[in-house]
Amino acid sequence: MEAPAARSEGPAGESGPALAPGSTSSARKHKVCVIGSGNWGTTVAKLVAENTGEHPELFERDVQMWVYEEQVELDGQKHKLTEVINTRHENVKYLGGITLPPNVIANPSLQDTVKDASIIIFNFPHEFISNICKQLQGHVLPYARGISCIKGVTVTDDKIELICEYIGETLGIYCGALSGANIASEIANEEWCETTIAYNVPEGDVQTATTTTTTTTTTTTNGTSSPATNGTAKTPPSKTTLVPVPQTYVPLDHTTISSLFSRPYFTVSMVSDVVGVSLGGALKNIVALACGFVEGNGWNQTAKTAVMRRGMLEIIAFARAFFPDAIDPKTLWEESAGWGDMIVSCTSARNWRYSKMAVERGVSVQEIERTELNGQKLQGISTTREVASFLRAKGVEEQYPLFMAVDGILDQKVKVEDIPKLFRK
Amino acid sequence: MEAPAARSEGPAGESGPALAPGSTSSARKHKVCVIGSGNWGTTVAKLVAENTGEHPELFERDVQMWVYEEQVELDGQKHKLTEVINTRHENVKYLGGITLPPNVIANPSLQDTVKDASIIIFNFPHEFISNICKQLQGHVLPYARGISCIKGVTVTDDKIELICEYIGETLGIYCGALSGANIASEIANEEWCETTIAYNVPEGDVQTATTTTTTTTTTTTNGTSSPATNGTAKTPPSKTTLVPVPQTYVPLDHTTISSLFSRPYFTVSMVSDVVGVSLGGALKNIVALACGFVEGNGWNQTAKTAVMRRGMLEIIAFARAFFPDAIDPKTLWEESAGWGDMIVSCTSARNWRYSKMAVERGVSVQEIERTELNGQKLQGISTTREVASFLRAKGVEEQYPLFMAVDGILDQKVKVEDIPKLFRK
Repeated sequence: MEAPAARSEGPAGESGPALAPGSTSSARKHKVCVIGSGNWGTTVAKLVAENTGEHPELFERDVQMWVYEEQVELDGQKHKLTEVINTRHENVKYLGGITLPPNVIANPSLQDTVKDASIIIFNFPHEFISNICKQLQGHVLPYARGISCIKGVTVTDDKIELICEYIGETLGIYCGALSGANIASEIANEEWCETTIAYNVPEGDVQTATTTTTTTTTTTTNGTSSPATNGTAKTPPSKTTLVPVPQTYVPLDHTTISSLFSRPYFTVSMVSDVVGVSLGGALKNIVALACGFVEGNGWNQTAKTAVMRRGMLEIIAFARAFFPDAIDPKTLWEESAGWGDMIVSCTSARNWRYSKMAVERGVSVQEIERTELNGQKLQGISTTREVASFLRAKGVEEQYPLFMAVDGILDQKVKVEDIPKLFRK
Repeated sequence: MEAPAARSEGPAGESGPALAPGSTSSARKHKVCVIGSGNWGTTVAKLVAENTGEHPELFERDVQMWVYEEQVELDGQKHKLTEVINTRHENVKYLGGITLPPNVIANPSLQDTVKDASIIIFNFPHEFISNICKQLQGHVLPYARGISCIKGVTVTDDKIELICEYIGETLGIYCGALSGANIASEIANEEWCETTIAYNVPEGDVQTATTTTTTTTTTTTNGTSSPATNGTAKTPPSKTTLVPVPQTYVPLDHTTISSLFSRPYFTVSMVSDVVGVSLGGALKNIVALACGFVEGNGWNQTAKTAVMRRGMLEIIAFARAFFPDAIDPKTLWEESAGWGDMIVSCTSARNWRYSKMAVERGVSVQEIERTELNGQKLQGISTTREVASFLRAKGVEEQYPLFMAVDGILDQKVKVEDIPKLFRK
């Protein structure tokens, strides 16, 4: 059995030589950690650790991965999951069969995982967000930067908040978002796909010379770039006053973040539109439920596609209505986090599959959730409930006929076959 | 057997009372005809005839449908196809099993079909366009207006022309375009779907008071409307000098055209962007071939979706490069003729199906075209050839890596598994 990988050496001293802005030679490397170790969390830890290994000029080699400690049975004996991961280099519980690079270091302590980390990747189920952020408060570097891989928004009757905004405000840091047409098990197997990362470089942070202007530019890895709609992609990173990343560090910009996540099997497109990436990832689940409903009802692909299109129009309308200064609709129109994620979610993912099954069996999707999901939740159901309640509170539900129809179907007040009528008032 | 339906009564006299612009009471009705009677042509004739029957204030009841005359065997005897259609109200050859309204009148004469028609719908295979237009020259009303349901463009080494532009210029009339995520047999069976009609009302034509400004407005049937990007949707309808539709007629605008095509099972979205609708319908076939290739090669849905997204970006780039003053990219982003058609074409239509089959069987798609299509052609192959040749002539092929890769795969110079590399230069 291979020896456990060495722990990270710790960051270079804060007192290192000051460097000219934009210079990377001898600049302080970023220390990266991942909070979460489910199948998606472990997959992302694997790919970023591959990159920290390949880019020693940008990143420290080791990637701490926080693991909620539990006992796993292996070879007839009980073991701590962290120990199994650090000796076998495999997350036998949540990503069995995939060998992790030895520089993924499982760590059962949240606080120790984030210690000295300048880049924190958040990747765990939505419902733990409040508890985990509370435990992290006061333990992250004041200039740390986050990337949330958690899809979703937090909607209450009169307030909507992006997950990455919540993280940023709770921890006093800036946090971007990663979302796209991604399926963890496929990426773990290194099957090619694309993703979108939204990161609106905070004003005080140094950027490399060539990318100084990327905060208002949509850059893609296929060599093209297109200007974002002027001024629309300006999300205030956080309402707190941000501490800039020290100039001693490698500049933390689109180029550096792309280097951390891009793999030959994982093509990254960088944008600045955190709102579009976050809302696309969250609201498409409502549309996926709708598509499962109509397809289960025997509708053909053209009708289902029409439902997807109406859903996308409502997502764009929602983004414009409630984030008017921060949305760049090109993200939803052109990025993997927009139409790409919509298509995959409505043709081959969970919310679609189980709502289709519900109609085929003549039961509610809530019943399918109880009987088929082994205690897991269908994100689309709670998102639909929260968004419908929010729209009612705002008095604008008639502007979102598809979202409201899905809510009505969940309540058995609307019939699936009435969907075309909703579009022809 | 039902008696043949009466022929059209002919248009009201040209000398009818002059009406105030925008008024429809007692205004002269539009006479509608359809050129083409394959399964899509007959389907469209069916739905417009349903509408001319229901809107006697806007349209003459009868819809002439040009039928390329042929003999069909029925009950052991040979009959003319036009006579069968006019007695049985069924196109037994191309749309069997579907009852047509009795006011669809099959007509074997092209010239007689268009006689006095103010609205001409073009719906036949691409390859007959030149011949049919030649036969129609000098026989259409000088103020007739067209809608082309023929998807495609005509590309030669140094010139690209939209089908509707070609029709308009050849006949000296204005011609719009209909395209969307549509499958003829489903619409014939009245299964719900959506479409997009691009019609840029010519400046001299009268519009109804409420829609006077629709030439620069995208109107959708779900009650929302959004302004098109200022100035970008202005296509010169034709290089010829247009004769305006006489003011004695019902105004021929988005409202009237929508009334002609909208059915409870067919939701119409009106736009002014003829370029987007035409290019979306034509170029998506290149992408559909690419999706069949990668899916046949065992790629998963996320990878296929990434190929669709890259394809859409290349279509938008193509439209912007070669129709810079006439494209409104919102059509491709938001309309059925854009992403909607792309999705259906890449998941359930012919070009995708046969290119997938080719890779699965280890033969070229040209071989599949020869052995499986019973003499029909795969539109995607010729479109790819023409577009690739055009891009080479313009010296910009490196800006369209997916289009050129499909061309390379057709030539067996590029391997399917190299597609991700093409996106990561």
